[in-house]
Amino acid sequence: MNYQQILKDIHQAILPYAQEGKQADYIPALARVNPEQFGMCIHTIQGRTFPEGDAFVPFSIQSISKVFSLAACLSFEGDELWRRVSKEPSGTAFNSLIQLEVEKGIPRNPFINAGAIVLADVLLKHLKHPEDDFLRFVRALAGNNRIDYNPEVASSEQACGYLNAAIANLLKYHHNIEGEIERVLHFYFLMCSVEMTCCDLARAFLPFANHQKPFDFDGIRLTASQVKRINAIMQTCGFYDEAGEFSYLVGLPGKSGVGGGIAAIYPKRYAVAVWSPRLNAKGNSVMGIKALELLTTETQESIF
Amino acid sequence: MNYQQILKDIHQAILPYAQEGKQADYIPALARVNPEQFGMCIHTIQGRTFPEGDAFVPFSIQSISKVFSLAACLSFEGDELWRRVSKEPSGTAFNSLIQLEVEKGIPRNPFINAGAIVLADVLLKHLKHPEDDFLRFVRALAGNNRIDYNPEVASSEQACGYLNAAIANLLKYHHNIEGEIERVLHFYFLMCSVEMTCCDLARAFLPFANHQKPFDFDGIRLTASQVKRINAIMQTCGFYDEAGEFSYLVGLPGKSGVGGGIAAIYPKRYAVAVWSPRLNAKGNSVMGIKALELLTTETQESIF
Amino acid sequence: MNYQQILKDIHQAILPYAQEGKQADYIPALARVNPEQFGMCIHTIQGRTFPEGDAFVPFSIQSISKVFSLAACLSFEGDELWRRVSKEPSGTAFNSLIQLEVEKGIPRNPFINAGAIVLADVLLKHLKHPEDDFLRFVRALAGNNRIDYNPEVASSEQACGYLNAAIANLLKYHHNIEGEIERVLHFYFLMCSVEMTCCDLARAFLPFANHQKPFDFDGIRLTASQVKRINAIMQTCGFYDEAGEFSYLVGLPGKSGVGGGIAAIYPKRYAVAVWSPRLNAKGNSVMGIKALELLTTETQESIF
Amino acid sequence: MNYQQILKDIHQAILPYAQEGKQADYIPALARVNPEQFGMCIHTIQGRTFPEGDAFVPFSIQSISKVFSLAACLSFEGDELWRRVSKEPSGTAFNSLIQLEVEKGIPRNPFINAGAIVLADVLLKHLKHPEDDFLRFVRALAGNNRIDYNPEVASSEQACGYLNAAIANLLKYHHNIEGEIERVLHFYFLMCSVEMTCCDLARAFLPFANHQKPFDFDGIRLTASQVKRINAIMQTCGFYDEAGEFSYLVGLPGKSGVGGGIAAIYPKRYAVAVWSPRLNAKGNSVMGIKALELLTTETQESIF
Repeated sequence: MNYQQILKDIHQAILPYAQEGKQADYIPALARVNPEQFGMCIHTIQGRTFPEGDAFVPFSIQSISKVFSLAACLSFEGDELWRRVSKEPSGTAFNSLIQLEVEKGIPRNPFINAGAIVLADVLLKHLKHPEDDFLRFVRALAGNNRIDYNPEVASSEQACGYLNAAIANLLKYHHNIEGEIERVLHFYFLMCSVEMTCCDLARAFLPFANHQKPFDFDGIRLTASQVKRINAIMQTCGFYDEAGEFSYLVGLPGKSGVGGGIAAIYPKRYAVAVWSPRLNAKGNSVMGIKALELLTTETQESIF
Repeated sequence: MNYQQILKDIHQAILPYAQEGKQADYIPALARVNPEQFGMCIHTIQGRTFPEGDAFVPFSIQSISKVFSLAACLSFEGDELWRRVSKEPSGTAFNSLIQLEVEKGIPRNPFINAGAIVLADVLLKHLKHPEDDFLRFVRALAGNNRIDYNPEVASSEQACGYLNAAIANLLKYHHNIEGEIERVLHFYFLMCSVEMTCCDLARAFLPFANHQKPFDFDGIRLTASQVKRINAIMQTCGFYDEAGEFSYLVGLPGKSGVGGGIAAIYPKRYAVAVWSPRLNAKGNSVMGIKALELLTTETQESIF
Repeated sequence: MNYQQILKDIHQAILPYAQEGKQADYIPALARVNPEQFGMCIHTIQGRTFPEGDAFVPFSIQSISKVFSLAACLSFEGDELWRRVSKEPSGTAFNSLIQLEVEKGIPRNPFINAGAIVLADVLLKHLKHPEDDFLRFVRALAGNNRIDYNPEVASSEQACGYLNAAIANLLKYHHNIEGEIERVLHFYFLMCSVEMTCCDLARAFLPFANHQKPFDFDGIRLTASQVKRINAIMQTCGFYDEAGEFSYLVGLPGKSGVGGGIAAIYPKRYAVAVWSPRLNAKGNSVMGIKALELLTTETQESIF
Repeated sequence: MNYQQILKDIHQAILPYAQEGKQADYIPALARVNPEQFGMCIHTIQGRTFPEGDAFVPFSIQSISKVFSLAACLSFEGDELWRRVSKEPSGTAFNSLIQLEVEKGIPRNPFINAGAIVLADVLLKHLKHPEDDFLRFVRALAGNNRIDYNPEVASSEQACGYLNAAIANLLKYHHNIEGEIERVLHFYFLMCSVEMTCCDLARAFLPFANHQKPFDFDGIRLTASQVKRINAIMQTCGFYDEAGEFSYLVGLPGKSGVGGGIAAIYPKRYAVAVWSPRLNAKGNSVMGIKALELLTTETQESIF
């Protein structure tokens, strides 16, 4: 498969969508990103890399980081983790308090905000130096030691993060947060603030595609079965209330972020990352979803 | 009407219910109150007082204080207030976040927690020395300068008040809190911590029954129409999701608190307060509701 | 009190609102009513009648009939009735299925559609000739033997009544309908189709205001306490999700209908009916509510 | 892969779960099925069949038939279909009216009851002899002309199908049913009443796994892309509110039915059917899910 040519063709084909959607602007650091950018990168299990467009420009990965948190939490807790968070699709907006109230503090899945805040709390319990340790894990996954947090992003998020603070307080009320709320939120926002390029992300997701090789990064270890199950959760829960649509259009497990990035995997073959800041009404990158749809249509490679 | 004898008879008649229900125990100061107590007091517009049982024992008035907050807010804001809070019955538990999320940060009424937190924010805007000013208003209503906050109650409430913190953050997210969240919650909990006796409460509610006399207490002024409308809100919203039941059984506007108190008024005749710590499943005093039901049945005096 | 002059003044004062709102048009018989009409009538316990405007024009009373159904059901079942229907305000639109599903087939109150469909089922159990018997009861209340159903209205309602059929099926699923669904709905729609004038309605509601006199009409008997409690339910539940607003503005127990009518009572004094077809967004008559607000403001007579 | 031996081992391994769960008993025909049965069958794209246990006993496929309906509807309507039904996971119980009311008559996906009732309506529009035509399609898929409806099952379902009647009426209210309600429900229940064996089902699902071969059965044609997308919908929506759990444990697209059957596919390899009547709390076969979990664990073959 000539992935380089395919990505080039896709880039051409999606240009008409370049003005569609609206980039996140709730914090200055996201609002000032040039929305005209588009990057994409495939990284295969053979170790080949196919960059396209702005594939080397770092961006805020935001919720994509929740896949890394989940991997670390599963490594520490195994199936015990599922006592504190479910693994069902949410069926409603990603930040809904309604479900959390009805279900008495058990988030519907680890990828909605409530679930990821619980993950942050779990990690704080297990990691000695949470900020350093999480970063080292991500750097090891991506094989790039220059990856870093953006503290400005993290602190603006926290400064205006009333909805997430509401969620954290509701979780605490239901005894599903052990740590101190401010501390948990600080770590949660910091993890979301990691900046990576499409190529970094494609490399960092490859281990989820390549479960025939042992998963062991900076001491975080998962079995092949655990890796597959993370993929299953990406498949059903990775795109907020657009998971069904993404599964229908693209047919790959993946995770999106409000910064405009999407990472996805084609098991046993490759990981792919795409980025473009303008989002659709559900909070997912317009060009990103379009590009991935074209990728699986063109290659006829999907999990189905 | 021989109110003294009637109260005495009621006290006898409700003794069989003395063990029913369960007192609030989410903070130590409420948990250690002797639940065997029962007090009641009628105060008429002629100025006569009819105490019964533990009518002179101070207790935590909790949500009953929301009537005082509402009176002060209406005095400052008039009908502008209703842009920030509705006046419809809630139909669900008093601390539900669901309604608040669906209705985008506008609390259903001023007596659910969300509504009262907005009232606290409004008062902070208008009062120079909020803590002192609110207390002076309550003391003036009750004609008793020894009435005071219980700071221990307020601070234990705040320490475990994750649900109210969730509500306040959700309100702030929807731009319906102007002040700083910690400050608003501090004042909210402090107002709830006021301690009064049944006789204090009956006197403090008399001005709501006696709207033929000008309402003017420590500079807080209301028109007769505003006073009546506060009564209307007590009638439809004063008992959480038991407002219909209370209206059906008792037929008087009133307001209950989780400390086991209830204050009610019979317009143009009297105000009545009752207190007994054990609560039913909806959070209202078992003996209190029973006593008021007997009062209106016995006297055949209700608003209907 | 010079009610005749007051009604005349009110009529003048509300003319500016004559074009506001939109009449019900979901069935032809309602759509073709001339919306420019306004009628009002007070009937006092002294037996005096004060008509104003189109007070002698018959209109479709629709949901106002639910007060008559409730009176008959309470007469037959007493407090047993409350095992099948609650008496709390609904807090949501009058035809919501959500509440019914969450609360497992127990309607929130007898005045939302689900509750009134249960009332119809109860009446079918107790009445030998339900259609005739109910009509005789209403005629006896109003003292007018020419009052009748409008079968065209009833059958167009049933023909397009998918939402009510959904409600009835959901009630049946939860075992809260005993009869056959078609039969229950037929009777429900027929009761709603009764046509009365404002003067008929004012007379028919007088017994609810005048509970010092025995309530006994065509064999339907209620105690004074039961009559007062029907008033209490009107107060908290009579105006769909605008019950709080009506209580606040008007301060009288009442019931509205989608035909533009409202009946209300001032206990121990009078009953009042008002009618004008244009409805506000909550389904209540714009001019009707305005007129009643002016009435209680002008007379300073309300239950509060 | 020695599927025969694997199925035999699985059968042994799951015997301890034989008494877990509870078979459907809401209609006599389902209640009287011997719950001790367990059948399983794999059918590969090479045409090999691996039966195990009661693999040749016919059972009521119930909701599994919704996959066949969806295939036929997509063939007729293409992506136009998605104007009347979404393709997102429901996140709540399969028969919830709440979502349908909130989302104004657009069912969340084609596999919840509301969605499948819309599918029945769509088919009635396109099929000349709906009952005959649908049956011929299923027979063609399974290559078995003796497959048939069970009219007793269909008529008992309809007789007690108040919840589905409520759903159909709510759909009609929102203009999302074109046909007559009784007619639509009759056809819906009839399609659910089809009886097949595990071996029938495995064969009938093979075309969904084998999308490299043209899909064309009795005139119902789908593109390879459409077939894959049906798989995607099975993956995210095939197990009511247990879709995430099934995806996590099993990792294959599939569809369950309340009769205790589950059909699933491993794309490009095989289709598998399993049946055992006892259901877990979410309405899915206990032994069925366990058997499929063991299958993908043992073979290490899943889509992830």
